Amino acid sequence: MPQMLARNLGRHINATVTILGWLYNKRSSGPIAFLEIRDGSGWTPAVVNKEAVTAEVWRSVEAATQESSVSVTGKVAQHPKREGVYELQVTDFQILQLAHDYPITKKEHGPEFLMDHRHLWLRSRQQWAILRLRDAVTTAVNEYLHQQNFIRLDTPIFTPNACEGTTTLFPVEYFDLGTAYLAQSGQLYLEAAIASVGRCYDFGPVFRAEKSKTKRHLTEFWMMDAEAAFVEHDENLKIQEGLVRHIIRYCLEHCQEELAIRERNLDNLRQADAPFTRYTYKQAIKKLNELGSDIKYGEDLGNDDEGRLTKNSAVPVFIEKWPKEIKPFYMKRDPNNPDVVFNADLIATEGGGEIVGGSQREERVDVLIERMKSEGLNQADYEWYLDTRRFGSVPHSGFGLGLERVVRWIAGAEHIRECIPFPRTIGRLRP
Amino acid sequence: MPQMLARNLGRHINATVTILGWLYNKRSSGPIAFLEIRDGSGWTPAVVNKEAVTAEVWRSVEAATQESSVSVTGKVAQHPKREGVYELQVTDFQILQLAHDYPITKKEHGPEFLMDHRHLWLRSRQQWAILRLRDAVTTAVNEYLHQQNFIRLDTPIFTPNACEGTTTLFPVEYFDLGTAYLAQSGQLYLEAAIASVGRCYDFGPVFRAEKSKTKRHLTEFWMMDAEAAFVEHDENLKIQEGLVRHIIRYCLEHCQEELAIRERNLDNLRQADAPFTRYTYKQAIKKLNELGSDIKYGEDLGNDDEGRLTKNSAVPVFIEKWPKEIKPFYMKRDPNNPDVVFNADLIATEGGGEIVGGSQREERVDVLIERMKSEGLNQADYEWYLDTRRFGSVPHSGFGLGLERVVRWIAGAEHIRECIPFPRTIGRLRP
Repeated sequence: MPQMLARNLGRHINATVTILGWLYNKRSSGPIAFLEIRDGSGWTPAVVNKEAVTAEVWRSVEAATQESSVSVTGKVAQHPKREGVYELQVTDFQILQLAHDYPITKKEHGPEFLMDHRHLWLRSRQQWAILRLRDAVTTAVNEYLHQQNFIRLDTPIFTPNACEGTTTLFPVEYFDLGTAYLAQSGQLYLEAAIASVGRCYDFGPVFRAEKSKTKRHLTEFWMMDAEAAFVEHDENLKIQEGLVRHIIRYCLEHCQEELAIRERNLDNLRQADAPFTRYTYKQAIKKLNELGSDIKYGEDLGNDDEGRLTKNSAVPVFIEKWPKEIKPFYMKRDPNNPDVVFNADLIATEGGGEIVGGSQREERVDVLIERMKSEGLNQADYEWYLDTRRFGSVPHSGFGLGLERVVRWIAGAEHIRECIPFPRTIGRLRP
Repeated sequence: MPQMLARNLGRHINATVTILGWLYNKRSSGPIAFLEIRDGSGWTPAVVNKEAVTAEVWRSVEAATQESSVSVTGKVAQHPKREGVYELQVTDFQILQLAHDYPITKKEHGPEFLMDHRHLWLRSRQQWAILRLRDAVTTAVNEYLHQQNFIRLDTPIFTPNACEGTTTLFPVEYFDLGTAYLAQSGQLYLEAAIASVGRCYDFGPVFRAEKSKTKRHLTEFWMMDAEAAFVEHDENLKIQEGLVRHIIRYCLEHCQEELAIRERNLDNLRQADAPFTRYTYKQAIKKLNELGSDIKYGEDLGNDDEGRLTKNSAVPVFIEKWPKEIKPFYMKRDPNNPDVVFNADLIATEGGGEIVGGSQREERVDVLIERMKSEGLNQADYEWYLDTRRFGSVPHSGFGLGLERVVRWIAGAEHIRECIPFPRTIGRLRP
């Protein structure tokens, strides 16, 4: 019988096909067994009628346990009750490998138990949906950025420089060359590369040795950094908005089953695909104070503040032009108000928090050197980076998007550790 | 004037447009200046006629130096001599930032000098072409694997296990959890994940603390690992061949300018897009001995041997079914000949060397445990991996593709260090 993916059964009504996969669920009602089979592409119900199969097949069905690998052959039919769902009317059923005592059962398991069994937990319907949404977000990012004339340009993990302080860096002994640090961002390298290719992005793991135990922190996570020559502040925001809206549209189009499993509110997602709101930092502080926050001008926004600001917003919110004192040396000051820089953070709807952060970069070498001095950075470490301002410096901007944060938002997940296949946190290095 | 990309000029003949970019080259012949402008998307000639511009514009043209950033406005015209090439007939020219003494000049520079200036060297035409080919190879891989129902699934960099021995691992102190090692492959994690999603791949940096100084070794490089449930040896090779042929076709279609800059022999590339040759290891040894190699059965192939085997081949060559003694524990033995395993290495044409390696995996838990014991591995470290064989084990296969090696082959580059934006070798951690 031709092998078929569960996902594609609807195209083959009345055909007899074979699905290779795993038994997800089974219940019996006298001479009828109702199976749920998953094969990686999706799920399908399969019905076995004792009268319609051989005694041997029926014995196999009876013997099969949760997560046994199986080969199931049957006729494809419209599900009698559920529109758009198809089922297999089983004619043959074989156990490939019988699973004994699969550790994850229907009872409640604690998060530590599930994380200890992450290699098996991934098989659950919810985790499957998140993995596939993560793939879709990644594909959407690659697609949109190429449409906007960016190319992918991988930046190094082993770096001699610290981009934003050394306290959260992982050091590695690097042969006879001393200490290397695992990258936290490829931005400085991308700033050099745009003078070759115009627009480029990296998309890979970055590392933060942060001793934070929140729902939003991982020690290893995936970041997309984009950088573009001749792009200034307003266009930078336009590209970010276009990217995030493309991600939403892509997932709505390609991940209907996954979003349904997540019970994601699709109307909310659809409404987020509209022009984003823009507050200056100053406006945001004023609004937050009105909403009851005690945040003061000059302070960073916490989770609660981000939530307050977007609580009644159908679309993500940019907070732009932050005070220069709380932002890094490379951000360009607004010539009309040199107390603030040309940056923006993008806060997602529905408690999604910050998903993108970016800025226009300072392109004048003398100003940049002065900033580095006042931040106590060692100029010698950055000579190569300063070369980008000495030889054909151009106005340019960039931004970083945290993959797990976007996946968490799109999938409506509670904890970021579910949004990466094998999470690494301060307390977890296994499996 | 509308800003335009150099790459798209041909669509706008007779229009007056502005290019924002860098001055790559300049020569003057009396009252005519011939400029070459690059803007990241490509290169365009620009001609300035002293009579046709203001005195100020002419002074700017005279003052402009190599790698100065510039804004060039002019009318688009067919190049008088070169078919399919367009030029700007300049009406305005402004220097955005004047570059003084750009370090990379037309004279020969040694490789160490160029690598010390990698952040600038990337701007050269040859390096630009390689960066864009790398992006194209990456895109082709993502495209093909999705067509084949794989999803991207990122595996962790911080790992507690050593996949193939610890001598070439980079250790990192990981909070209170002891030592983590930087990943050399995500294979074991993918083998767990296929039981969730069926087919998946990772594509990210991997690390090897190898003290090798060859043209093919980096300490940090990009690897794509793919893994598929219910795929056995023959189908595994079919997927690999399909992938490599897709990469060839994609680059031929999308990177004509880049391949021309590299002076790549396109006929050779086109001919490689045909059914690949398959030798068993045993046949390969016999053939190598006939060709003058002194390699003995049971030895690994060196660079020279790989070159000999493919020297007269128009297509890449699989070498399959290697002796089990020189291959890792997880490879499945051929039931018809238990001295060999169901694996294959793929050797590229034209001296490209090994670009892909893969195998069918042993799916029986008892056989796997026995293999691990005989290789002296600590079973406790692999309990989570063995779970994949205990709970719904299925026949499965996978392979790894080295991105830089493929780029080196497609781009016809001599040294692998040119095939990654910022290479890391035993002697290099900067810039």
